[in-house]
Amino acid sequence: MFKLLFVFAVLILSSNASVQDFCVADLKGPESPAGYSCKSVTKVTVNDFVFSGLSAAGNTSNIIKASVSPAFAAQFPGLNGLGLSAARLDLAPGGVVPFHTHPGASEVLLVVQGSITAAFVSSANTVYLKTIKKGELMVFPQGLLHFQVNAVGFNSVAYVFFSSSNPGLQITDFALFANDLSTKLVEATTFLDEAQIKKLKGVLGGTG
Amino acid sequence: MFKLLFVFAVLILSSNASVQDFCVADLKGPESPAGYSCKSVTKVTVNDFVFSGLSAAGNTSNIIKASVSPAFAAQFPGLNGLGLSAARLDLAPGGVVPFHTHPGASEVLLVVQGSITAAFVSSANTVYLKTIKKGELMVFPQGLLHFQVNAVGFNSVAYVFFSSSNPGLQITDFALFANDLSTKLVEATTFLDEAQIKKLKGVLGGTG
Amino acid sequence: MFKLLFVFAVLILSSNASVQDFCVADLKGPESPAGYSCKSVTKVTVNDFVFSGLSAAGNTSNIIKASVSPAFAAQFPGLNGLGLSAARLDLAPGGVVPFHTHPGASEVLLVVQGSITAAFVSSANTVYLKTIKKGELMVFPQGLLHFQVNAVGFNSVAYVFFSSSNPGLQITDFALFANDLSTKLVEATTFLDEAQIKKLKGVLGGTG
Amino acid sequence: MFKLLFVFAVLILSSNASVQDFCVADLKGPESPAGYSCKSVTKVTVNDFVFSGLSAAGNTSNIIKASVSPAFAAQFPGLNGLGLSAARLDLAPGGVVPFHTHPGASEVLLVVQGSITAAFVSSANTVYLKTIKKGELMVFPQGLLHFQVNAVGFNSVAYVFFSSSNPGLQITDFALFANDLSTKLVEATTFLDEAQIKKLKGVLGGTG
Amino acid sequence: MFKLLFVFAVLILSSNASVQDFCVADLKGPESPAGYSCKSVTKVTVNDFVFSGLSAAGNTSNIIKASVSPAFAAQFPGLNGLGLSAARLDLAPGGVVPFHTHPGASEVLLVVQGSITAAFVSSANTVYLKTIKKGELMVFPQGLLHFQVNAVGFNSVAYVFFSSSNPGLQITDFALFANDLSTKLVEATTFLDEAQIKKLKGVLGGTG
Amino acid sequence: MFKLLFVFAVLILSSNASVQDFCVADLKGPESPAGYSCKSVTKVTVNDFVFSGLSAAGNTSNIIKASVSPAFAAQFPGLNGLGLSAARLDLAPGGVVPFHTHPGASEVLLVVQGSITAAFVSSANTVYLKTIKKGELMVFPQGLLHFQVNAVGFNSVAYVFFSSSNPGLQITDFALFANDLSTKLVEATTFLDEAQIKKLKGVLGGTG
Repeated sequence: MFKLLFVFAVLILSSNASVQDFCVADLKGPESPAGYSCKSVTKVTVNDFVFSGLSAAGNTSNIIKASVSPAFAAQFPGLNGLGLSAARLDLAPGGVVPFHTHPGASEVLLVVQGSITAAFVSSANTVYLKTIKKGELMVFPQGLLHFQVNAVGFNSVAYVFFSSSNPGLQITDFALFANDLSTKLVEATTFLDEAQIKKLKGVLGGTG
Repeated sequence: MFKLLFVFAVLILSSNASVQDFCVADLKGPESPAGYSCKSVTKVTVNDFVFSGLSAAGNTSNIIKASVSPAFAAQFPGLNGLGLSAARLDLAPGGVVPFHTHPGASEVLLVVQGSITAAFVSSANTVYLKTIKKGELMVFPQGLLHFQVNAVGFNSVAYVFFSSSNPGLQITDFALFANDLSTKLVEATTFLDEAQIKKLKGVLGGTG
Repeated sequence: MFKLLFVFAVLILSSNASVQDFCVADLKGPESPAGYSCKSVTKVTVNDFVFSGLSAAGNTSNIIKASVSPAFAAQFPGLNGLGLSAARLDLAPGGVVPFHTHPGASEVLLVVQGSITAAFVSSANTVYLKTIKKGELMVFPQGLLHFQVNAVGFNSVAYVFFSSSNPGLQITDFALFANDLSTKLVEATTFLDEAQIKKLKGVLGGTG
Repeated sequence: MFKLLFVFAVLILSSNASVQDFCVADLKGPESPAGYSCKSVTKVTVNDFVFSGLSAAGNTSNIIKASVSPAFAAQFPGLNGLGLSAARLDLAPGGVVPFHTHPGASEVLLVVQGSITAAFVSSANTVYLKTIKKGELMVFPQGLLHFQVNAVGFNSVAYVFFSSSNPGLQITDFALFANDLSTKLVEATTFLDEAQIKKLKGVLGGTG
Repeated sequence: MFKLLFVFAVLILSSNASVQDFCVADLKGPESPAGYSCKSVTKVTVNDFVFSGLSAAGNTSNIIKASVSPAFAAQFPGLNGLGLSAARLDLAPGGVVPFHTHPGASEVLLVVQGSITAAFVSSANTVYLKTIKKGELMVFPQGLLHFQVNAVGFNSVAYVFFSSSNPGLQITDFALFANDLSTKLVEATTFLDEAQIKKLKGVLGGTG
Repeated sequence: MFKLLFVFAVLILSSNASVQDFCVADLKGPESPAGYSCKSVTKVTVNDFVFSGLSAAGNTSNIIKASVSPAFAAQFPGLNGLGLSAARLDLAPGGVVPFHTHPGASEVLLVVQGSITAAFVSSANTVYLKTIKKGELMVFPQGLLHFQVNAVGFNSVAYVFFSSSNPGLQITDFALFANDLSTKLVEATTFLDEAQIKKLKGVLGGTG
């Protein structure tokens, strides 16, 4: 009797050989609108589903006194196609993650150290602003402008999670001032003064 | 024989009474994450599927010399749940639709009069810029910053179409300067100068 | 200080190198149920997001006195995966786009010249019929039979937009009479008379 | 120790009280684009998940010698929101389910008695035709025209399953001839002869 | 005149050459999160849309006196990307399909011979149990534990249909006892006794 | 000039009054398959988007020496419809979250204190097992069985995030032993011994 059941087990196991429970990203294969190609299941190991890249603090020795370390499908292949990803925020005293959006995902923020003042702005231009303490969560609906600033005099740390394995990240300042879009067009489409634009282009490496 | 077939027809017609081919928005019913409630099919007429509100030119007698007239599900109830909506852009000479995003949709623009210079900026901060003539199309991927400016010395008109019946619209200037977010926080999260922020808050009615 | 910020900018830019804001169709790569493969971002230019193929009038010197010019992902690769596509309808006097469906999308029609009588039929066999003027919109819910006919004595032009980058197009007459499905089976499954079927098969090149 | 575990069990059970594993249709509540409202979980019983309405043969004493009995969310409330539904086809000798589409779903057919000749037509007008025997499956991709005819001299029975709890059903003949669309417009948009149209309108109860 | 229409037909046919109504699985191409790559349309035949593998009874000469024969996209390539799949259950007297889940799909069961007692358990641990007769349907919401047992003294047969072309199948006993997860960890995470675990590991070929 | 721009701002603000950027759950309104009804935007405050319920440690004085505190849409209304939710795990020394599934979501786990041994089992019965340290992430694909156990001699804490605002939670032991499913049926569908089942039913409060 046991032998028969064992045979059954083997049959099920082999009939399942083609099952696609997950699609670990093969970063070298073709991409589709649904994400990266799938690595062969025979090459998948538990390490594809584990990511250690957010364990250490990011480098905050920069002008924004902050760092954003992504764990998207490109960094953490096991997430591909599963509708989730993550990032770590490190904010030194005075640290700021400037106004930005994620074009393809909503975000939940978890403060794990310190305290963070965060806000998002709705399409109706209403500001939803709050200072979040350790252990608290805040959600930022998809595609809306938001920011995070350190609310304490020591390092704050947060982890954020997204509703897509490829949420995107568009920092407004970089989109406006860190490329070759002409000062004239930036002026016309932002109402900012020419001098202000040129100053920020200078800082952020923009031309034109 | 004909009678029997007729009977069959009546049967099919009545069994279909509950069919949900569409969900015309009942703006007074409860909303769900999938959109507005459905109006009773017995009250639906062809006029729910037709929208005349974009026939006339919008008023461009304003500082941006432009107008944006939406035909989202809130204005055009027949679109509810169908994954599509529209808007009309009128751009007088010098007219500009400032930098903005649609948090929930991609957009296709069709120029029907004049010529429009448009661009979007990717997450990698690359600018995709082009002047589009009458009859040409340009696509703006979901959630990315983009703008449109009139490229000719007379009125230009475009229609845009979205991949959602409720795409949202977030104009960056309004999100930053037309609410009560404090100047200090705007400064910290945009790197703009205090004077610049105060100037635009003044123009756009912001406080704080 | 500026140098540090510039370094930060460069870091963000390179960490974003793998971002997938869009997936311009590589028509030679493998297709998936989600659409075409993505062209390498390094090869993408603004021209992938612009389409000029609908600028000129289609040829209406044919029996239906009409033409339908598609801008689906296969013609306009920048649309791939974005849930949108378009087409241009040209209708000479007496012109008709015969009864058809789009199996994978809802449609919004915009009249830009002349006037068009259009209708769709619901699953309950109700007809939603209206004559649409320049600047007006009409929506056709997914998968339902609909048609467009010129309502004026001169050329009418419309642009249509779809809720998929690959909406499909099935013209009922062609599906029934332009292939090798036997006259006997067409007769049995449409209740049309044999003579009628043979006549239309003759016109449309059907056999069997 | 057991007591503590029992307490834990009770806690979990109550914290799960708000869980939404399913959404049994409340046919009297508001509908949304995602389907019917959910019946209160406290009123749900196993009978909501079981449907006996397809056990008996449908009445084939009609002109098509066939019947289609639906088990969509409107008939089988447990299916609401689950992306599945079903129907039973009974085909007497000579029985036919005429050309039709399901605007919102793909379909799989299972023959459980007799044999059925079925076909669908692609957007490229290619016919995919096959006679299916008992125990065989055939799939019809979303929105495409298809039909089923009895292939044997006795009753055939099939069950079909859809990829939506509300697939819709549009029978081409009924859409064209069983309503008040004018003969002139049907003629213009189908190329059928006036006499043919009038004949079928007579049979199917159409006017105009 | 006929010639012109014919020309039109040819034009439409060729412009449709790139249409993607379906995506028959090419099992040798790259996989994406949305499913298998598409076989070239020119190589697709009606046989890709027909599956005969469930016509014959499965082998029930095993310890569970039952068999499950899948028709997922891997077995039935025409289903790829269409959101549907199927399986056949054969249950000899005393036959059982043990507790299992489908991680990626809801299921509808149709009894075609005999009678089957089936149940699923909700997140709130409520059991929905019923004996289903020939011609009846039962639905099992996505991801929930369920089982089927033969309710009569002769062979019962059912067909099940899923809301995904790749629903997955996880039999709880096999997940717990048919691999190398250590007895200690199974004990800690199931509360089962060590002897019970070792016994079932022995039967099902588990190690550790 | 400024006045005109201000007028424009007011117009945009009011035309946006109907915008649906988010859908904060109104727990008293009707539910749909897409989630809870939306609270009126005029009643929404930033507190709807912030959740403090996971700040404090859960009570681990129970037999599993662990607690799971959910922040699903039912607890954290701002998440409704956004495709994200969260939970906090507290694991005392020897603490265990027993084998369970989330029927409607994938999960990412972040260890914020201590160290946790976690595993999931695929449809092919392969075990993916790893001990995760503070700051590391592990992903569990949708619907698959998984568990977490404390790997250190002091309290471990983790936060988990889901790809749905309503992921569900089915603990295998509770599904099998904490309800009225008869011992005979549990025995038949799990292969467990009668004594083992009765023992666990006793512990977990099951009857039958």
